[in-house]
Amino acid sequence: MKDFSHLLSQVNGRVTASAIRELLKVIGVPGMISFAGGLPSPEMFPAEELGEIAQKVITSSPNKTLQYGCTEGAADFKAELIKLLKKDEDIEVSQDEMLIVSASQQGLDIVSKTFVDPGDAVIVAKPTYLGALQAFETYGADMIGVESDGFGIMAESLEERLEELKKAGRQCKFIYIVPDFQNPTGTTIPEERRVKILELAKKYDTIILEDSPYRKVRFKGEHQKTFYALDKGAGNVITMFTFSKTLAPGLRLGYVIGDKEIIRKFVILKQALDLCTSPACQSIAAEYLKRGNMDKHIAEMSKLYGKKRDIMISALRKYMPKGVSWTEPEGGLFLWVVMPENIDSEKMLKTAIKNNVAYVMGTAFYPDGSGKNAMRLNFSYSSFEEIDEGIRRLAKAITEYGK
Amino acid sequence: MKDFSHLLSQVNGRVTASAIRELLKVIGVPGMISFAGGLPSPEMFPAEELGEIAQKVITSSPNKTLQYGCTEGAADFKAELIKLLKKDEDIEVSQDEMLIVSASQQGLDIVSKTFVDPGDAVIVAKPTYLGALQAFETYGADMIGVESDGFGIMAESLEERLEELKKAGRQCKFIYIVPDFQNPTGTTIPEERRVKILELAKKYDTIILEDSPYRKVRFKGEHQKTFYALDKGAGNVITMFTFSKTLAPGLRLGYVIGDKEIIRKFVILKQALDLCTSPACQSIAAEYLKRGNMDKHIAEMSKLYGKKRDIMISALRKYMPKGVSWTEPEGGLFLWVVMPENIDSEKMLKTAIKNNVAYVMGTAFYPDGSGKNAMRLNFSYSSFEEIDEGIRRLAKAITEYGK
Repeated sequence: MKDFSHLLSQVNGRVTASAIRELLKVIGVPGMISFAGGLPSPEMFPAEELGEIAQKVITSSPNKTLQYGCTEGAADFKAELIKLLKKDEDIEVSQDEMLIVSASQQGLDIVSKTFVDPGDAVIVAKPTYLGALQAFETYGADMIGVESDGFGIMAESLEERLEELKKAGRQCKFIYIVPDFQNPTGTTIPEERRVKILELAKKYDTIILEDSPYRKVRFKGEHQKTFYALDKGAGNVITMFTFSKTLAPGLRLGYVIGDKEIIRKFVILKQALDLCTSPACQSIAAEYLKRGNMDKHIAEMSKLYGKKRDIMISALRKYMPKGVSWTEPEGGLFLWVVMPENIDSEKMLKTAIKNNVAYVMGTAFYPDGSGKNAMRLNFSYSSFEEIDEGIRRLAKAITEYGK
Repeated sequence: MKDFSHLLSQVNGRVTASAIRELLKVIGVPGMISFAGGLPSPEMFPAEELGEIAQKVITSSPNKTLQYGCTEGAADFKAELIKLLKKDEDIEVSQDEMLIVSASQQGLDIVSKTFVDPGDAVIVAKPTYLGALQAFETYGADMIGVESDGFGIMAESLEERLEELKKAGRQCKFIYIVPDFQNPTGTTIPEERRVKILELAKKYDTIILEDSPYRKVRFKGEHQKTFYALDKGAGNVITMFTFSKTLAPGLRLGYVIGDKEIIRKFVILKQALDLCTSPACQSIAAEYLKRGNMDKHIAEMSKLYGKKRDIMISALRKYMPKGVSWTEPEGGLFLWVVMPENIDSEKMLKTAIKNNVAYVMGTAFYPDGSGKNAMRLNFSYSSFEEIDEGIRRLAKAITEYGK
């Protein structure tokens, strides 16, 4: 067998396979109830409409949908998104302040590539989205964790870390935040705290990378302004949105907004990454937006996910042994379970899978290996019955493992 | 205005915007005849069939086409590709020796990421595909150029460079080759020379990165075996194929084959890049392959491109001033024009665009700034009439500039 070790780059030593991507394979096992992935509910895909739209845009505009597109993204698709941001988010951006990406994960890659050299400091919440940790890791980022509470990343802890970095003569390249129904905890940062965090970013001359995959999927409570809207186009925030949770991950579509100087840098790097995001997929989403059904679709989705979240919380109350607690999110796809400290969720996974239920262990969401007694549960994918039964199995696994 | 300079990574200092991607914008100018892009002929898109297929796969399998897919690529799509490789290329690979990518440019990015640290030596032909140079550059590769003749990369020059590197105690990470109808020259490496080059890769313990975007688009002459087939699965070759030139670039689909240990490393890195390539697009291409129309489609395309190539060569003979020469490729999308040494094709571009004709300057394809008096012409995109008229304009521009 050929030995490749002398040919490999250093990145291979830094990255490991994503716990979630590996766990996704478990979903296919018959009888398994998986709370592991971040998959949208299958019944929410507007398949008939998207199929019809796909046929229409491909046959009527083959020179646009089947040909190469520009790296920046299709102008008509961006125009729809710009209208949407204005209407829903009080955000005004121009075409050159937006880049279409092959969903948010590519946004994370491009942002990392633009800002991070090996050893550079990047601030993340403890815990945070593991796909972000993975992207930052491939660029050798030194990920500095900031404490969170029930309302997301804590401003005091953030200021301490920023001050420490400053004293050490180090620059924080960016602060990565999922402000709404955070992945993995489900918590939302109140507007007041967002203002404080934005002030800190300015004070320490860094930027906020705002990742907002499903902020419109809210079941209760009030929308909080995005960091981008609060910054009013001053260049201190880059925000990533995606169609993966609100329409269909299978289209692989997202968009990033930011200062046009930065977007231009993203465009140049994306040229070398994949030339452009699929014009066929962009045209499908553009036509879907033009028809104006998005709001209704998201309202229905929010209602469904809200019901699933209620069922999961009821089941947790019904089945979980003493000493187990969980978050009760106002939106999104996930909640976070904390178990007694003697329980290691990574080791417990074997017991859970034996009981035909899966989750993601807490440590996957920490840059420092903490979170051992926690787990992330997804409530969007499974059916009502599966959620109840899955939580019952999970409680059983916790009890079995704890013995 | 916010200053971002203290936040940027080193890659921003290395890369510049792609000459081609920028030139693509010129295509839209009314009256412009562009030989610049590498765009397939618009009349060759099987739009009706792809539109119908898109509707069918999206409405009948939404949980596959609209949902997240596995990073490795859809198993049924890969199964079709594996059959195709066996039938057409005498290549036998298994599912875990193949990764679906978002077209070849992403393949180039993933390969670079897997093998290249800043300063690492990579060998390329002089000239070579500029998108590859751009990808390698983002990773800080030291690109070592090897001389080419009318039959591609020269084994003697390759051995000299490999020997020099060895003496300097440096490892060549890979040798990048476009063996069939090379981009930009249109030349094809004969099988005998391929065998020699493969022997050199083995001797110097490096690998060949074979990029084969349109090897089936052959108008005349005999197919030459791929490096991959010649290596018989021994792990010395990684090969990239794409649907961009043979079906539709708008789907952004390609596939990479190689040793399963290396493919596994690619998969882990792709997780952090974009999670997966669009399952919707994969399903469309899979269904197209299942229907068995690909061979006929490529035969028609080859016929059309062959005719376009003939028209371009006739026009070159008819219009070009003395001292201008060109390659006469047996397939593909490009030919290469060399002008007298006093003509700088980059500077001449202004004169050409004033005459409503565009091309890519030769320097874009060299790692060392040579190729000043050369240019790449694409013959697949323009109509028969445009090709004749465009070459007439180009000859006029050369004469005007030469004065």
